[in-house]
Amino acid sequence: MKYTLYYWPGIQGRGEFVRLALEEAAVPYVDIALVPERRGGGAPAISAMLENEDESRPPFAPPFLKVGNQLIGQTANILQFLGARHHLAPRDWRGRSWTHQLQLTIADFVAEVHDTHHPLSTSRYYDEQKPAARKRARDFIANRLPKYLGYFERVVERNPAASGCMVGADITYVDLSMAQVVAGLRYAFPKASRSALRSTPLLASLHDRVFARPRIARYAASKRRIAFNNDGIFRRYPELDG
Amino acid sequence: MKYTLYYWPGIQGRGEFVRLALEEAAVPYVDIALVPERRGGGAPAISAMLENEDESRPPFAPPFLKVGNQLIGQTANILQFLGARHHLAPRDWRGRSWTHQLQLTIADFVAEVHDTHHPLSTSRYYDEQKPAARKRARDFIANRLPKYLGYFERVVERNPAASGCMVGADITYVDLSMAQVVAGLRYAFPKASRSALRSTPLLASLHDRVFARPRIARYAASKRRIAFNNDGIFRRYPELDG
Repeated sequence: MKYTLYYWPGIQGRGEFVRLALEEAAVPYVDIALVPERRGGGAPAISAMLENEDESRPPFAPPFLKVGNQLIGQTANILQFLGARHHLAPRDWRGRSWTHQLQLTIADFVAEVHDTHHPLSTSRYYDEQKPAARKRARDFIANRLPKYLGYFERVVERNPAASGCMVGADITYVDLSMAQVVAGLRYAFPKASRSALRSTPLLASLHDRVFARPRIARYAASKRRIAFNNDGIFRRYPELDG
Repeated sequence: MKYTLYYWPGIQGRGEFVRLALEEAAVPYVDIALVPERRGGGAPAISAMLENEDESRPPFAPPFLKVGNQLIGQTANILQFLGARHHLAPRDWRGRSWTHQLQLTIADFVAEVHDTHHPLSTSRYYDEQKPAARKRARDFIANRLPKYLGYFERVVERNPAASGCMVGADITYVDLSMAQVVAGLRYAFPKASRSALRSTPLLASLHDRVFARPRIARYAASKRRIAFNNDGIFRRYPELDG
């Protein structure tokens, strides 16, 4: 089954959580962000899909994955699909439900990270909402960051398999996403995340283990991995870093 | 299998999406919000669960549903579980994935509704972030509200079953949630939602049909249904209503 990933070019964004799962599973896929526009890729290809009036099940926004004729949207939903198909989730439904629950909590966390630089409007530039961004980021660093990281640390700590992973004995898609969040936090908030991650050593080590996995390491070192930058979710604005 | 729903007392909040599914499915459940504290219910019962150090799979926040010994958290994840078990979702995996995708888009929408009155910090009062809330609400009404509602209207319109529902021929949990969102928008933004819903007649009529269903109508008229109020997600602050 051929997979095509649709996500905006030039940023990791939410598409990166899907890419990490595809790379770890060693599934071949076409990444529309890397296909030149003149060959039918890039942003115009995404807009054409979003605006296709013949699509009876249109996604609201990227990322979405084309699987045969089906479009699967919403990051956590795509990962749920990939996890079940490509051995990146537990086999029992309780384990799958728990993995998905954690992924949805990561999605909430990521939305809050995004809102630190866009607290008033996603359609306006950061520069137009700087004072509000400072307030929101201050609250994020003081309250939300330690709350989320502390929670995920407990999840690893209490995993009965004591595997250093979040669920069960083996790696799942939620470990890949968690490692990506740690990497993003280190980029966006070098000061605040250093201090916060000191209290969550299991997450720091989960990050290292994920990015040391052969396929992930190869991908991260490749040209396919877009660098963090200030157009994505995780942005480095020193004035927001506590 | 006995179900117990854990959600904060006094507000509909995200718990209401779960309640509507349980009510429509006619599944018996204990609603911890309605159990007095002296009988082991209310907020202390929720906090005790969240802080239980023996729980290897703790939820991050309410709502969560206790099913036997398992705790299922994240609204959309709970609904995915209930939908499959109680005939509130399609039988085929494509249909289930699509229903879940729509529910996750509703979750994003609901988070943006919440942020209209709490753009800077969830841990501070509305009164402490009024000017920012005005800006965020203005953007919400001008851009996000019509974008989301227009999207969901198209979903109903393009449903090949032409059932007036969002997915397939029969009602699913996402129809219940959509109707609840319409009700919430009418409470919170009477002016802006009246104008927006004029362009989305299928959603307006979906709302009416859902709340006319016998079990939902009975529930909505009962004392179990908490009224909308200014402690929940949907709050009526006239200064935010365009």
